[in-house]
Amino acid sequence: MELSSKYLQKAVDQMSTLPGVGKRTALRLVLHMLKEDKNSVLEFADSFVAMVNNVKLCKQCHNISDVELCEICTNSKRDIATICVVQDIRDILAIENTMQYKGLYHVLGGIISPMEGIGPNDLNLESLLIRAKEDYTQEIILALSATMEGDTTNFYLFKKLSDANVNVSVISRGIGIGSELEYTDEVTLGRSIMNRSPFEINLSN
Amino acid sequence: MELSSKYLQKAVDQMSTLPGVGKRTALRLVLHMLKEDKNSVLEFADSFVAMVNNVKLCKQCHNISDVELCEICTNSKRDIATICVVQDIRDILAIENTMQYKGLYHVLGGIISPMEGIGPNDLNLESLLIRAKEDYTQEIILALSATMEGDTTNFYLFKKLSDANVNVSVISRGIGIGSELEYTDEVTLGRSIMNRSPFEINLSN
Repeated sequence: MELSSKYLQKAVDQMSTLPGVGKRTALRLVLHMLKEDKNSVLEFADSFVAMVNNVKLCKQCHNISDVELCEICTNSKRDIATICVVQDIRDILAIENTMQYKGLYHVLGGIISPMEGIGPNDLNLESLLIRAKEDYTQEIILALSATMEGDTTNFYLFKKLSDANVNVSVISRGIGIGSELEYTDEVTLGRSIMNRSPFEINLSN
Repeated sequence: MELSSKYLQKAVDQMSTLPGVGKRTALRLVLHMLKEDKNSVLEFADSFVAMVNNVKLCKQCHNISDVELCEICTNSKRDIATICVVQDIRDILAIENTMQYKGLYHVLGGIISPMEGIGPNDLNLESLLIRAKEDYTQEIILALSATMEGDTTNFYLFKKLSDANVNVSVISRGIGIGSELEYTDEVTLGRSIMNRSPFEINLSN
């Protein structure tokens, strides 16, 4: 696709570097921007410059933050005895939305994936081991995706954490709340039968 | 969705101003950018600043261009007797890709749509009427979408162009090449029966 303006072409090429955005979509998006007034496009561009120049990673949990320690790590109402290990900051948002968790987080920044060339050294692992060995840390919750890569990482973390005096737990897997049995895939269903738990009447749920 | 960094929040908000990009997708795209190195993000932002500062519209056909007259208008190999009227520059790309058209273009910049509040005054119409009245202009091809808005605009343009001494034609409508009859919608099929043409053996096709 050759465009009639090299500036337009450049913008389209840049837009199509975003994941899932092809050349056609990029052109549609850029032409939409050209219809906007000039200042909103400049504001659009500025927001990314400001972001890369100012965004930091929290020194403790590697969450994205504007300051050295993120809001969650410095919040005195949170339970510092529990650390929930997640893949990236979107998982923090998802867990925060449940309103069920009051502990701290640790962002790994990825999961072990030989296919994508991501090994343990590419993850924020050392800092997790140091945190795990702190006296006040009692439990590490592994909240990674229920994929092969997630399982591999869980297993690796579990081994690494065996030196530290902490309980390591994994978020439960099974059929989703509201799912119908007949439409659940067999692997999930098989696992959820194997991992069955005693029936309890729990009024809080 | 409240994010842990106001710079990240700003970038996500800006990204989600793009059509079809929701907050979740915007966050995914912006986090992807944060994983890139700083210079590529700056290059991304720069490309939009350079675009809005430099892109012009061709004085003659309103195609996007870096110079006063676009490459198509100044190309001496093109047939200046024919002007193809299109809605926006993506249509020019689509037609150019067919390699079947060697005339000039005229970008309306929209089509008449009372629903979206777009009237004749919002389109590049005056300049089209001036071009139509030039001695060397012999044919105006209306190549708008086969929608109600396209039809309305075709009709309006046809009336407006009746003063000028030009032939006005419309691109043909009917079942698409490669389409099966039974899957063609009834409006298209009905039209293509009404607009039937004498059978010709045309070896060039």
